Amino acid sequence: MTTQADSTDLAENHYDAQQPFPNSRKVFIEGSRPDIQVPMREITLSPTQTSDGVEENAPILVYDTSGPYTDPNVEIDLEQGLQPIREAWIAERNDTEELAGLTSEYGRERRDNEGLDDLRFAHVRKPRCAKSGKNVSQMHYARQGIVTPEMEFVAIRENQRREHLREITKQHPGQSWGAAIPQVITAEFVREEIARGRAIIPANINHPELEPMIIGRNFLVKINGNIGNSAVSSSIEEEVEKMTWATRWGSDTIMDLSTGKNIHETREWIIRNSAVPIGTVPIYQALEKVDGIAENLTWEIFRDTLIEQAEQGVDYFTIHSGVLLRYVPLTAKRLAGIVSRGGSIMAKWCLSHHKENFLYTHFEDICEIMKKYDVSFSLGDGLRPGAIADANDEAQFGELRTLGELTKIAWKHDVQVMIEGPGHVPMHMIKENMDEQLKHCDEAPFYTLGPLTTDIAPGYDHITSGIGAAQIGWYGCAMLCYVTPKEHLGLPNRDDVKAGVITYKISAHAADLAKGHPGAQQRDDALSKARFEFRWEDQFNLSLDPDTARSFHDETLPKDSAKVAHFCSMCGPKFCSMKITQDVRDYAKEHGMETREAIEAGMNEQSEEFVRTGSEIYHKA
Amino acid sequence: MTTQADSTDLAENHYDAQQPFPNSRKVFIEGSRPDIQVPMREITLSPTQTSDGVEENAPILVYDTSGPYTDPNVEIDLEQGLQPIREAWIAERNDTEELAGLTSEYGRERRDNEGLDDLRFAHVRKPRCAKSGKNVSQMHYARQGIVTPEMEFVAIRENQRREHLREITKQHPGQSWGAAIPQVITAEFVREEIARGRAIIPANINHPELEPMIIGRNFLVKINGNIGNSAVSSSIEEEVEKMTWATRWGSDTIMDLSTGKNIHETREWIIRNSAVPIGTVPIYQALEKVDGIAENLTWEIFRDTLIEQAEQGVDYFTIHSGVLLRYVPLTAKRLAGIVSRGGSIMAKWCLSHHKENFLYTHFEDICEIMKKYDVSFSLGDGLRPGAIADANDEAQFGELRTLGELTKIAWKHDVQVMIEGPGHVPMHMIKENMDEQLKHCDEAPFYTLGPLTTDIAPGYDHITSGIGAAQIGWYGCAMLCYVTPKEHLGLPNRDDVKAGVITYKISAHAADLAKGHPGAQQRDDALSKARFEFRWEDQFNLSLDPDTARSFHDETLPKDSAKVAHFCSMCGPKFCSMKITQDVRDYAKEHGMETREAIEAGMNEQSEEFVRTGSEIYHKA
Repeated sequence: MTTQADSTDLAENHYDAQQPFPNSRKVFIEGSRPDIQVPMREITLSPTQTSDGVEENAPILVYDTSGPYTDPNVEIDLEQGLQPIREAWIAERNDTEELAGLTSEYGRERRDNEGLDDLRFAHVRKPRCAKSGKNVSQMHYARQGIVTPEMEFVAIRENQRREHLREITKQHPGQSWGAAIPQVITAEFVREEIARGRAIIPANINHPELEPMIIGRNFLVKINGNIGNSAVSSSIEEEVEKMTWATRWGSDTIMDLSTGKNIHETREWIIRNSAVPIGTVPIYQALEKVDGIAENLTWEIFRDTLIEQAEQGVDYFTIHSGVLLRYVPLTAKRLAGIVSRGGSIMAKWCLSHHKENFLYTHFEDICEIMKKYDVSFSLGDGLRPGAIADANDEAQFGELRTLGELTKIAWKHDVQVMIEGPGHVPMHMIKENMDEQLKHCDEAPFYTLGPLTTDIAPGYDHITSGIGAAQIGWYGCAMLCYVTPKEHLGLPNRDDVKAGVITYKISAHAADLAKGHPGAQQRDDALSKARFEFRWEDQFNLSLDPDTARSFHDETLPKDSAKVAHFCSMCGPKFCSMKITQDVRDYAKEHGMETREAIEAGMNEQSEEFVRTGSEIYHKA
Repeated sequence: MTTQADSTDLAENHYDAQQPFPNSRKVFIEGSRPDIQVPMREITLSPTQTSDGVEENAPILVYDTSGPYTDPNVEIDLEQGLQPIREAWIAERNDTEELAGLTSEYGRERRDNEGLDDLRFAHVRKPRCAKSGKNVSQMHYARQGIVTPEMEFVAIRENQRREHLREITKQHPGQSWGAAIPQVITAEFVREEIARGRAIIPANINHPELEPMIIGRNFLVKINGNIGNSAVSSSIEEEVEKMTWATRWGSDTIMDLSTGKNIHETREWIIRNSAVPIGTVPIYQALEKVDGIAENLTWEIFRDTLIEQAEQGVDYFTIHSGVLLRYVPLTAKRLAGIVSRGGSIMAKWCLSHHKENFLYTHFEDICEIMKKYDVSFSLGDGLRPGAIADANDEAQFGELRTLGELTKIAWKHDVQVMIEGPGHVPMHMIKENMDEQLKHCDEAPFYTLGPLTTDIAPGYDHITSGIGAAQIGWYGCAMLCYVTPKEHLGLPNRDDVKAGVITYKISAHAADLAKGHPGAQQRDDALSKARFEFRWEDQFNLSLDPDTARSFHDETLPKDSAKVAHFCSMCGPKFCSMKITQDVRDYAKEHGMETREAIEAGMNEQSEEFVRTGSEIYHKA
């Protein structure tokens, strides 16, 4: 990583992720103070050609998770990391202090190990921690009535779809299963939702590079992309590249699930270069520290791992505190047992010691750490089903009820919480998951893996799970953890990461539409209008993946002239339903026949007129 | 097509589609007479290694749409076509006669055109037609209480998933929205459903090569793949190849949507080589006959086209009889107008003549033709929405109500009917489509295109629509028309056809699971069991796409030894949740701790025992 050759490779890997999107520019919406600059992507559209001349199409603003990478005004230097945009916000609250050194013993060991000099990020910042007796969580501020810059940032960010709103057509009211999304997201609404525990802003004080985002069911549905090396494969460079690549395509958060070598160093590189929240599963690293022997795990080793990672800036921790001793044997009759790695580690620990899970018995100790750095809980579903046959069983729902109890304990400490969910669940059993979660966890945000709706398609599990993800998002799930085509088969590469992210953006957006999220339909409508008007470039540019849309079009009609053609490649120039529709529209307009009544009144004697004026099809252009 | 070089190319193109699936063999279940031979694919599994030795895993039978192409005992010769397995069944009913020549004027013209000799299928069979006054539809037989060989064939076919059933785990009761799927599908149940109009067997008497299948919501959810050339691109060879390719991967029917040159000849090649029902949209060809000028269409031209195609053996016709004059102007205010090609052709015709749609006014004349050949109606949704913004509007539902009226007229003639549906519909508006269709069309099978649940992802519309398809399948839709990644952008190639088919098999199967279709979960359970037991080869072979599953695995762990490894590439050899689960299982078994009560009773004092016996993980192997 420190040799010239290595860093050039790294820079090259990032080249693609740093290209601005076509016809797009990065814009910033300023908040109540000049250092609140909320990034968005503005897509410029071409005008509509009409018989009366030209009609402008307003640009469309879209939510932008790509960070400074797509900003041509920013010089990216992965070896320096991103700018710490939250630094002043954190400092001015005057409730934290910069520590002289690392608190974690393991962190110090890694820092002092000269053998790691070549791997280590060169500009490790001194860690920051809450002053004695202070709680620095967003939930704590919210409950005191304080609107933080982070809350204002996410409020602006959630509203963007209504900026430049162009009322092309009616909005369909959604079906929101009891949620209550307001027409305008205010910072005060954000504060209330955080205080209530119905939403979280994962934002460690040691991750000042973060562009804040919110997870909760009264906001846009979010997605998470997993990256991480394993003992078998993958390097630091690859993991950093996967992170920038996944956020380019829309990943709202990233989980680093590394289980192989140099996890500590990999994580530092990722966080310093990430504008999105980073989540981890600390038990993975704790297990590495005891050479993979689950029985040898201790609370002390785990505690040191939490602090090590909290001081690096991890924004949320998956912690499997709900895997209780008494639930473990309930999985014995399952078809696929325990498939969560964290769940199986803790199950093994519990059984071999015949003791209750130390992540449960030390839960309040963990809360004490979380609130010092504002790390959010992602309470792990260690007993989630790993096969359709195991969905919604007693082991799963038993654990869920325990996660509900723990949620209330975390909230007592003003620590932010979300709840992880399955897994493998057939469609008709998905809603029960959401309903049970809302009930037992008192509306804390739900964060599910898929769920996969069938087990028969390895190689396509982004699709088997995208189906379930769209549904549970609609029912109220706040964040969807992506699944790539390689699930169950291998480690995802760059193409798999992109396929997973795009699939999950589709699921999340389909859910936003179904929930009736204000403004969500604007991009659909703009794209459909572009399609109807044969504005091919606009259609590509409004797509979640402009590159693929364009290349698919070019396979059939590669010439540039085809992109301004008033026909599409499906039917050819003479035979086009959209052309014919234009006739209908012109006819109805000329004859005032736009409602059923007008039609019935005016239908007689206008036929000849149509033949005369309408014989030239698509005469708008 | 007739030169040696051409046919060699064709044969090569078909090579892939003719490979048997790995570890699979074609088996035939014999019905009540020796000429009822229902094909299925049997997947052989390897045994489970246990500490007690070896435990056999029964082979799994799966529904097989691939026809004789995957049967190594059949010599495929595309220039001869497939064997006419239904020939005797049709003949022995003694209600049809072989005609001396073609009835259709156009058909005769094409036959006599020497310029087409090179393109023409060489062995065109003489057409068969009902004897005067006879009705040869499956519905007609069913209503007289006759169980035809076709009905018995599909009854056996629908049951296959319960053959060799191995009760691995509990079956989850589905949520079937009012449908009533019996535990065993009998030929008599098939007859009742056909007689009631709740299911159809599309099976033209001029398509004796057909392996009969059934479409109805009390049966397995089916999928359709579209193929077809256009004025821009594609050849006869490509279309025949796409058909065999799509049916290899699971397409239950094929629609030939050709709009370009030599449609008549292409269709003959496709039908003669197809073991699945073929559907068409006759108005496309009728329009070609009037040089693309919709106003010049006449009932006479259309009528001749129906007969031409019926005598070739088309099994179902999409006919847009519901596009009424008064509905057309209702589309003028839409964002995307009329996107159905057939719908826009008829809309243009109606407006320019100021007359009611001739497909509506001549509906009973059309029924007279349908019943002479047993062609099924697929009543077209010419006014389906082409954008989320246009979903469930008055134009769409007005047409649907008219399709309901027409259904009852067709049933009066004992003609089989299914109803086409949208299109572009956000998730929360999908169920209304299904409910309205059931209500107005009196439970005639619904056959939908997707629906696409968002418009923002051109290039990924197999996924945007696969989400909607799974849902509407669950709600009761009988057949799902696939959408490929090229939708809206270009003509699908071979890879796109496969991606579309596999995605829709996922949606259809997810729907079967959610409906609680008896036995549907068997394949999921077998695959999950193989996964849990690290039987990699079985996991690949049970997948919808063994080739892709295997190649994805091999990207990370290419060695053959990795396919027998008791770990997967996600976590590496030391760190594996499935290994740990095995410990839990062994522990629970040894200590009789498989229920909550047993656990609470026996939880004390067994900890040390576990440490002693359980320290070697995965000691089953």
